[in-house]
This record gives sequence, structure tokens and C-alpha cells, in this order.
Amino acid sequence: MERVAVIGASGAVGSEIVRILEKRNFPMRSLRCFTRLRPLTQEALNEIDLAFFAAGSAVSKQWIPLANNTLCIDSSSAFRNSVPLIIPEINADAMNNHRGVIASPNCVATVLLMPLAPLHRQFQAKRIVMSTYQAASGAGAYLVKHLQDETLATLNGTSIPPILPFPYAFNLYPHNSELTNSGYVDEEIKILDETRKILGDDSIMLSATCVRVPVLRAHSIAVNVEFRNPFTLAEATELIRSMPGVVLFEDREKNRFATPHDASNRDEIFVGRLRIDPSQPNTLEFWAVGDQLLKGAALNAVQIAETVRMNTLHLR
Amino acid sequence: MERVAVIGASGAVGSEIVRILEKRNFPMRSLRCFTRLRPLTQEALNEIDLAFFAAGSAVSKQWIPLANNTLCIDSSSAFRNSVPLIIPEINADAMNNHRGVIASPNCVATVLLMPLAPLHRQFQAKRIVMSTYQAASGAGAYLVKHLQDETLATLNGTSIPPILPFPYAFNLYPHNSELTNSGYVDEEIKILDETRKILGDDSIMLSATCVRVPVLRAHSIAVNVEFRNPFTLAEATELIRSMPGVVLFEDREKNRFATPHDASNRDEIFVGRLRIDPSQPNTLEFWAVGDQLLKGAALNAVQIAETVRMNTLHLR
Repeated sequence: MERVAVIGASGAVGSEIVRILEKRNFPMRSLRCFTRLRPLTQEALNEIDLAFFAAGSAVSKQWIPLANNTLCIDSSSAFRNSVPLIIPEINADAMNNHRGVIASPNCVATVLLMPLAPLHRQFQAKRIVMSTYQAASGAGAYLVKHLQDETLATLNGTSIPPILPFPYAFNLYPHNSELTNSGYVDEEIKILDETRKILGDDSIMLSATCVRVPVLRAHSIAVNVEFRNPFTLAEATELIRSMPGVVLFEDREKNRFATPHDASNRDEIFVGRLRIDPSQPNTLEFWAVGDQLLKGAALNAVQIAETVRMNTLHLR
Repeated sequence: MERVAVIGASGAVGSEIVRILEKRNFPMRSLRCFTRLRPLTQEALNEIDLAFFAAGSAVSKQWIPLANNTLCIDSSSAFRNSVPLIIPEINADAMNNHRGVIASPNCVATVLLMPLAPLHRQFQAKRIVMSTYQAASGAGAYLVKHLQDETLATLNGTSIPPILPFPYAFNLYPHNSELTNSGYVDEEIKILDETRKILGDDSIMLSATCVRVPVLRAHSIAVNVEFRNPFTLAEATELIRSMPGVVLFEDREKNRFATPHDASNRDEIFVGRLRIDPSQPNTLEFWAVGDQLLKGAALNAVQIAETVRMNTLHLR
């Protein structure tokens, strides 16, 4: 039984990790919560067996190198390039009894890869074009509150001080992570890098447009993917349907597909609008929606810990 | 000087047509407004020289065939396949002194084609993959009111009777126009058909995903387009910048691009995030935002009438 800690336990992701550990009855000897007001110390870190880092890249970069015998599961992007980057349903084998740091991917990458991975295994993804519809909660609890407060003010004919260079109430904007010289923002580049790493195929090409929409929770993505090999719609549908953690959400009779509201507070990634794109051979369109705080972040981090634990028990 | 009428004058598009005719000082002998409660009659139609139809396909299909010497400018999709379909900045020549019916395109097609047309002329568009972020007002004034009312109720911890199979407040959904056997909805097919017709090139391929977002006004689109011929980013940017009715809206220093709020109640289409897509040769990504009630509908209809009038004067 392990001594567990959550660093950033009061944040949007950290508080979900605490809740999920309890809900899933994760075996723990103790659970310590660290926050901005109750910060981590070296002494405390030395007495932790399993640490969930959910306080952003700066905190991860500061503390993870100082961990000795602690398994660190990092929800930030700090070490994603250099350590195993894991979605347990897809590449649990890449942990390979790794100790030290294991990274949990970007939330959009997870929503993309859960349905894409089984298709890729079968038909080999070649090039992806995708657009995102990202919720406020992806930026943190403060943006959810701002969206609510500003929307209420707008509806009442008043206003509140903006925190963005434009209103967010009833508005949307291209993702404001760092703009690189390529014209792509950091968020878009992460999706490409993490897709290649998690699927283990550096030949995959990907172009993304990331957009923040006035939705409180759950990210949606529209995905167009060209495969190297031919497939039928029935085959693609069956692969999606069979993927653990993915739910095929399509009612064609009622023209009803997943919305962020359907996916909020749900563990699964919901996929639908599967259709053959006739504009190019071997090409599929689909729509995926997932709660980026759960499978997109907190749940995936806990699942990584559960998988490590299972492997360790198995080895004994 | 003509006798002008607006059919559907109290609707979202019709009321904008009335406003724009006044604002642009369109030369008229008289302006008659027809609504659901003050419907069009054959007798009235016989005395109209120029009729703007903005009451939906059913009304257009009923009355336009009964017009004799009336020039009908139709904002609905009723006749788009069979009559000139015009964006004056792009294909005014396709009116060719046509009398009878001239159609104004789908709002998303217009937001796409205003920046795409100059690029296509120069480099030949081959295949487009696009996702839309469509505002409530595209479905009519009733959906704008529902979004506002439901959002206010949600923020106050109450609810109102839904008019969709899911909440719209802080939510979004795949476009609910008719789902065809292809898996594409009618709205997505319109964009393909109208793009080919307006650009006069049936070889253009296009795959769209249309999504309704909780935005009151102005549609946004993320566009990935492959051209037949090579180009540089500087060339593409200059073509966009030079297109009448299009504004290049990019502040890369500030990472600031157009939002629906910027484009609301504005005549121009705002374009930015231009970048070379390195995943494929000759491919460009861009972001376009436009007020679908103005250039996407009412303004374009009035511009068609202005163009017809200019041509007629010129011929005399």
C-alpha cells in the first residue's frame, strides 16, 4: 500500500484526481494534498511513493527532478517529450516497468487518439486534418468562472472587466497558446508530437486548428483522417465500437450525435458522425467528444497509476 | 426607379435587407414589406419590379414561379441549383443580364468563398477540408432568443423547456439539417455544391463538418485547402489582402485573430491564421469569420441588386 500525493490538488485537474482516487477506491496507505497555499517540500516528497503532478509545467519542472524513489505521474507537458507518454488503453506497454516519471498526454490528443488508435493499428493513419472546439475548463477553473460571470453580465446588459482582449461571452477564439513562426500555436504542435509518440509512428502527418469555445466542460473535435490502407465504413465503425473507453454515440434516425453536454462528467470518449470522405481515397471523417478533465487529464493519470500497480503485482 | 419588396421582412435576414436598403440608399420608388401576418398576393407581386425573398424555401418555391416581370433575388436554397448563384465580388459575370431569379448563396459558402476565390483563381483549389462554428442567428431569431433565455436560466440555476434534444446553453452540436445516406448533412453538401458552382469548377473536392456553437451572431470556419499549383505564404496573404470585402485580421505579435464578436454587424469577412500546412504539398490553412446575416445573406442580396442595376444602367 502506497503513500500517495496530489500536487495542485485544488486546481481543475488535481481536484478531479482526488475525487477519482476515492471513487475508484485506489489502494492507498495515505493521501496528501498539496496546493499553492500548502506547497510541496523536499521532506514531504521524500516520503511519497506515488505523486500526481497537476499544478502546471513550472511546478513539475521544479520538483520532479528532485524526486528520488517517487513514481511521478505528470499531467503537465513538462516531460512529455522525454519520458513515456501513456494512454493505458493504447500504449501501456511503453511504460515498460518504467520508474521515475510517466507523462499523461494533452487533453485534445487523448480525445483524438482514443478512437484513432484502433483505426491506425488496422489501416495506418497517414495524414490528419482536425479542428477543435475546446471548453473553458481546459484553461483552468478561473476561465470557467469568467465565462459564467461575463455571460451573466452580458445577459443583464452590463459588463465585467475582461481578462481576454475580447469578450468570451457568446464568443470563441483561436487558441491563445504561444504562436510559433510556423503559424501554428503550441497547442496544435503538441497534438502532432503526442500523436506520433503515442502511436509510435513518426511518419504520421497532422494539421490542427485549435479553438476555444464558450462551453464549460468537454472538448469536441472534427477529424478528417487519411489512411494508407483501404477500409469500409462498417470496419471502421466496428473498431470504434470495440475500443475500451470509447462509446459509439450515433442515432442516425434521430440525427443525434454527441455534444459536450452528453460527455461532461463521463469517463468515456463519445464518437460519431463516422462517414467516408469521398473527396480522397481511404479517408474517414469523425466527431469525438470527451471530458478533458476526466479521460483528457485526471482519469488518465489515475489509470496510469492503476496500470503500473497491476504490472508490479503481476511481476511479484 | 423601382418598386421594391422584401418578403419575410420581419425575419432575421429580411429585417437586415430592409435596414441595408435604407443604409445604402438603394434607389427605390417604393418599398413594400411582406410578413407572415401581411402575406404576399399575386396582385401585389404583379406590381413589384424587384423582390427580395427571405422567408425560406417554401415561400420562395410557392411565389417565385408566379412572378412575371419581377426580378427575384432569393436568399433561400430553393433555386440555387438552377439559376445564377452570385457573390458579386466573385462571379458577377454569371448573372449575364439574367432576369427572373438570382440566388444568394448559403452563408457558410459565402464566408468560405470570399477569401478562397482569389486564391483559387491564382493557384486552383483541388481539395478543401473544413469545420464550421455557426452562430445561433443562422437558424433564425428564435434560436438566438432560446440560447439567451436558456443560458440565463442555467446561470440562475433553473431551466426552461428545451427546443432541441439537448441543452444549447454552454453547449454545441453537429448541424441538425437533414442527414443523408452519405453521412453528410444537407448543410455540408450545400457548401460543396455551391463552391463548385460559384467558382465554376466541378473538379473541386470538399469535405465539411458543420457545427452549431453557442454564439449569437457571425460564423467562423477553419479551412484546410490543397491547391494544384505551388504558392508562397506571402503570395496567399497578398491575395487575401487585396480581395474587396475581405479584411486580413492578424496581429501575430499579440497572437490576436478575428472572433465572431469582431465580425458581428460588420460587412467584411475577416481572415487570419494563414499558414502553410507542412503535412502536404501546396496546402494552406486559414481562419475566416463573417456576419452571416450581412455578407452571408442580406448584404449579398442587396449587392446583387446593386450590381444588376449598375449593369442595366451601363447597357442603356
